[in-house]
Amino acid sequence: MVSFENDYVAGAHPQVLRRLLETNLEPMTGYGTDPYTESAREKIRRACADPAAEVEFLTGGTQVNAIVLSALLRDWEGVLSPATGHIAAHEAGAVEYSGHKVLTLPQEQGKVSPETLRRWLEEFEGDENREHMVWPGALYISYPTEYGTLYSLEELWSLSRICREHGLRLYLDGARLGYGLMSWESDVTLPDLSKLCDAFTIGGTKVGALCGEALVFPGGGRPAHFMNSVKKRGGLLAKGRLLGVQFDALFTDALYFQLSAETIEKTQAMREIFRRKGIPFFLDSPTNQQFLLLENGYMEELKKKVRFCFWEKADEGHSAVRFACSWSTTEEDLKTLEAAL
Amino acid sequence: MVSFENDYVAGAHPQVLRRLLETNLEPMTGYGTDPYTESAREKIRRACADPAAEVEFLTGGTQVNAIVLSALLRDWEGVLSPATGHIAAHEAGAVEYSGHKVLTLPQEQGKVSPETLRRWLEEFEGDENREHMVWPGALYISYPTEYGTLYSLEELWSLSRICREHGLRLYLDGARLGYGLMSWESDVTLPDLSKLCDAFTIGGTKVGALCGEALVFPGGGRPAHFMNSVKKRGGLLAKGRLLGVQFDALFTDALYFQLSAETIEKTQAMREIFRRKGIPFFLDSPTNQQFLLLENGYMEELKKKVRFCFWEKADEGHSAVRFACSWSTTEEDLKTLEAAL
Amino acid sequence: MVSFENDYVAGAHPQVLRRLLETNLEPMTGYGTDPYTESAREKIRRACADPAAEVEFLTGGTQVNAIVLSALLRDWEGVLSPATGHIAAHEAGAVEYSGHKVLTLPQEQGKVSPETLRRWLEEFEGDENREHMVWPGALYISYPTEYGTLYSLEELWSLSRICREHGLRLYLDGARLGYGLMSWESDVTLPDLSKLCDAFTIGGTKVGALCGEALVFPGGGRPAHFMNSVKKRGGLLAKGRLLGVQFDALFTDALYFQLSAETIEKTQAMREIFRRKGIPFFLDSPTNQQFLLLENGYMEELKKKVRFCFWEKADEGHSAVRFACSWSTTEEDLKTLEAAL
Amino acid sequence: MVSFENDYVAGAHPQVLRRLLETNLEPMTGYGTDPYTESAREKIRRACADPAAEVEFLTGGTQVNAIVLSALLRDWEGVLSPATGHIAAHEAGAVEYSGHKVLTLPQEQGKVSPETLRRWLEEFEGDENREHMVWPGALYISYPTEYGTLYSLEELWSLSRICREHGLRLYLDGARLGYGLMSWESDVTLPDLSKLCDAFTIGGTKVGALCGEALVFPGGGRPAHFMNSVKKRGGLLAKGRLLGVQFDALFTDALYFQLSAETIEKTQAMREIFRRKGIPFFLDSPTNQQFLLLENGYMEELKKKVRFCFWEKADEGHSAVRFACSWSTTEEDLKTLEAAL
Repeated sequence: MVSFENDYVAGAHPQVLRRLLETNLEPMTGYGTDPYTESAREKIRRACADPAAEVEFLTGGTQVNAIVLSALLRDWEGVLSPATGHIAAHEAGAVEYSGHKVLTLPQEQGKVSPETLRRWLEEFEGDENREHMVWPGALYISYPTEYGTLYSLEELWSLSRICREHGLRLYLDGARLGYGLMSWESDVTLPDLSKLCDAFTIGGTKVGALCGEALVFPGGGRPAHFMNSVKKRGGLLAKGRLLGVQFDALFTDALYFQLSAETIEKTQAMREIFRRKGIPFFLDSPTNQQFLLLENGYMEELKKKVRFCFWEKADEGHSAVRFACSWSTTEEDLKTLEAAL
Repeated sequence: MVSFENDYVAGAHPQVLRRLLETNLEPMTGYGTDPYTESAREKIRRACADPAAEVEFLTGGTQVNAIVLSALLRDWEGVLSPATGHIAAHEAGAVEYSGHKVLTLPQEQGKVSPETLRRWLEEFEGDENREHMVWPGALYISYPTEYGTLYSLEELWSLSRICREHGLRLYLDGARLGYGLMSWESDVTLPDLSKLCDAFTIGGTKVGALCGEALVFPGGGRPAHFMNSVKKRGGLLAKGRLLGVQFDALFTDALYFQLSAETIEKTQAMREIFRRKGIPFFLDSPTNQQFLLLENGYMEELKKKVRFCFWEKADEGHSAVRFACSWSTTEEDLKTLEAAL
Repeated sequence: MVSFENDYVAGAHPQVLRRLLETNLEPMTGYGTDPYTESAREKIRRACADPAAEVEFLTGGTQVNAIVLSALLRDWEGVLSPATGHIAAHEAGAVEYSGHKVLTLPQEQGKVSPETLRRWLEEFEGDENREHMVWPGALYISYPTEYGTLYSLEELWSLSRICREHGLRLYLDGARLGYGLMSWESDVTLPDLSKLCDAFTIGGTKVGALCGEALVFPGGGRPAHFMNSVKKRGGLLAKGRLLGVQFDALFTDALYFQLSAETIEKTQAMREIFRRKGIPFFLDSPTNQQFLLLENGYMEELKKKVRFCFWEKADEGHSAVRFACSWSTTEEDLKTLEAAL
Repeated sequence: MVSFENDYVAGAHPQVLRRLLETNLEPMTGYGTDPYTESAREKIRRACADPAAEVEFLTGGTQVNAIVLSALLRDWEGVLSPATGHIAAHEAGAVEYSGHKVLTLPQEQGKVSPETLRRWLEEFEGDENREHMVWPGALYISYPTEYGTLYSLEELWSLSRICREHGLRLYLDGARLGYGLMSWESDVTLPDLSKLCDAFTIGGTKVGALCGEALVFPGGGRPAHFMNSVKKRGGLLAKGRLLGVQFDALFTDALYFQLSAETIEKTQAMREIFRRKGIPFFLDSPTNQQFLLLENGYMEELKKKVRFCFWEKADEGHSAVRFACSWSTTEEDLKTLEAAL
């Protein structure tokens, strides 16, 4: 059955898989020391316009979030996150497993506003009991957010400034980064992120790879002995080439951006279909995840024809649901969807 | 340059990669719920002759060791390991990161004897201060060991009996399991392991896969909510298919055993070459890793022609070195080696 | 200066200190195996009317909360707490340091209602993504709460029932338990707690002891090897007598209840003073902590005469402040307060 | 029965208890901010001849060891310890609970030699696999050791130099520090420790206090936000006065040193008794713990008359046992011992 259930229903982009095939029998050194990994690092540095950037590759999103945060946080610090942030809600307590608290901030459609952040920090800094509290050491945000929404460059700039003023590090989770950067609404670029963040990821798993997230430390900010910390947390692959070759392919001829852009185009086509069919949007997402409001009986019928994801109960008779496009979504899939609606 | 440096110098066995290619565009559900993962589980259950076995797939060896041990150990327990065990020496403290101590046992050529284990446990149980000490909760062994050596079935049986008598769980790290089971010296089978262990792994990374270790809980012994524990430790892949498809291929038509057996044959050919050339063995390993003793000057010359791994200093003038075969070693490689020696 | 700043401004109740003095030179075995500790255990069992209760003594509140929760929770579980709960807000992330998340519930004046708990649990159990979330394993409540408020026996009964129905353990933090049980508003007794909770504490630090919290596991529910877990977390005192003798004194002739009752009487006298002086209450607490609303200028003047605790900003011109009575508060102190107001 | 079982059989030195009594009803601020704690800090600074030293007070030995080590170690580091070190053997894995490995060194009678340390470090630094290993971040030693033995100043100097050369911190566990410093064999002083160590403790529990260890960070080396780290690990007492008053008493008129010296005198008298009775020493300890070799039948008889501690089996017919003196040992006790032997 055609599936819009999420953006990881297929394997790797064919070009990525082809490169794995072509390089498969070359003997290479392990643990990310091979030439393809080095080449991928260099291509990402260039894409970020940041010659001093340090780039590492990890396998999955929860893994990279927990590892980078526990490396960035000092013993007495926790991480601020919008209450809907993936680390706060859907990573099984991986950050807490590292001994650090996730401090939650009020959010709107997945985003925390600079004003909210500033107010929280000022309140904390004025609290006489703060030596008995968890100190804020970093801000976690995602781009796009869990609701598919985007921060403007102006908002990111403000969040970054506030973090610096208050001694926090800024970490941006880019599990779906390509779909954010290529959105019609985005005014943000990779070089912008490299200037504003202390660390950020370029997600591969949902944007063309079989697995893998590139972790970027702009300007040479990688924590000391970071690969040892990765090993200690079980995140170091013997065959680092698996990640290196994939990201090398994704950052050759801007494949990462191209397939993200194509996905966004398909998303626009999908939005058009929903509009034509008069299906109301649950919220307005400018990225590859679209949230719709369906009457429950209709939803049950539709389930028999296409796959999509139940998101949350909206009211007694209606549900919010998610349809996700990805690089693997085809014209054919969209036609099937339109027919099914 | 031809490389005998380790057994993960190449990518995946071509048949494994072919299956990834063939299934690449099929939409599948995530997190190990896809049909290929289920099929791989079933094939492994059959290979273990254990219909109740529970099988999970994780990405790497350090990861799986730390996760399974922290799930098997209770709060007040540590894990016994030969002093040379991978978890004790070369996993950057990943077990300790989970809050559990690795208690080391004397070993010989990587193996701990039943007698050593029994004596240690009896001494512990007679210690009046044991409430202030870390309690032994599990025994970690590897098959083959870090020195390429093997336990006999009789030894495994004894270790298993002692563990059961003293309330320990037995965990066997099979990162190179295939090369052990297919050795000319082995009298052990997968069904044996399923009867003797509380958990064991079937290593993929070093035996034909790009990445991945199958984790077997014989007889339905998987810890409760295990996948949640995996997620909490960053080990759950969104595209679980990456592991499932590979292991499904490895356990189709006994590929895993076949390529292990071929590797063992090549290892025997390599041993013959060393013998012909009069290179002395540092220790007698019956598996794919061979440990030789080289005069230092000769070693430096040889390094210019083939890749191998420095193991340890033997005496002032000599070094122990390791040559590893794998499924990707070719006849040609062996000829090059013979010429170089 | 006379101090109502908190309820731990003085040392130990004189009768407690006298017993430390009287027993000081008796040689005793360590780590809580001495006869006074055993006697204290037995007296607490009787006070709880629970012959199977297991009782341990720990040094401080944050320590006991983190240790007991990490022993009660299973790997994949977190603890539910009202958002204002001490573990959620003012223990520097000690629970998270043990690797478990604190999941926060909406509260009113420090209390979580049975309805709120039930709704949260039902929502969680209906969530399709719960395998990616932290599972609720226990409910943390305090009696009195951080706002000095009390649960009725009916409310505790309901919370306990809901916990049992949904597989949660119920833990009650009794750092100020005596002041709660002896309140004019309380309809709860120690035997009630022993029937309703899986674990609870009887706070000593704030109720007559120099330090120490008694930890009660009703009906023999102490986790296996608990003292080893305590040792592992640095909570085991060599001279366990320090805690045993103090609690033995506190539970001789019901001293604990008597000095709690006297404190409550003094609190009522203090409330009368505030009423006479027309100082408005910020909230209505029936225990030894009283929360008042002061105009800021007046507050600054008052600070020069008596010590009290700033609680939070109420509005632009007013502050909420806390005045705490304890067993060490004297008639004289209250007269000084009245004169100062 | 008269007890030489250990050095914590009695409560506090009477002078210490008197000060607790005298200050008992003074209202004081909490968490170590009271004037007695401050006074104790200043007296310890003076005793260390280190005006910049930072001094904190914790409750027990295992607690302080785990907290200070986890604060001194960086993420990728473990702590080196003689194999018999208290943290390695008898603290229930408290250091590992903080996520750091204890790396053990060969020892003789509880001591690690500078030569052993240097060799270990050089071997580690030459190991090509060290990025997969736990890095040494600190050296743990105790003074006196678990066997009652002492390092000479020359040995401490060498250990300290080697630590500095290799980037390790030096931590000295002084649970019985007084009995070491006052030994006839010691050539070490508190100011020496303040120059040589990055942190060390002055044990109170076994030297006159009810509980408490002073933790000294020479020269202002306290880790940032240390009290928050202490709170996070459950080590912060609300009534910090309990520790402050005791240490203030112990460091008034050199009481700590005086009662240590008296204990050493009694130990010498006890040694004389053993010599007179012809009881052989198991090892030669110059501090308050004496290790004797008893024939097993004789040992069983002796047990009926005095309390002492079984240490370990020496051979088939003999046992090593420990007799400990402390400040609370009396002339009378020694006479009883002599009569019993």
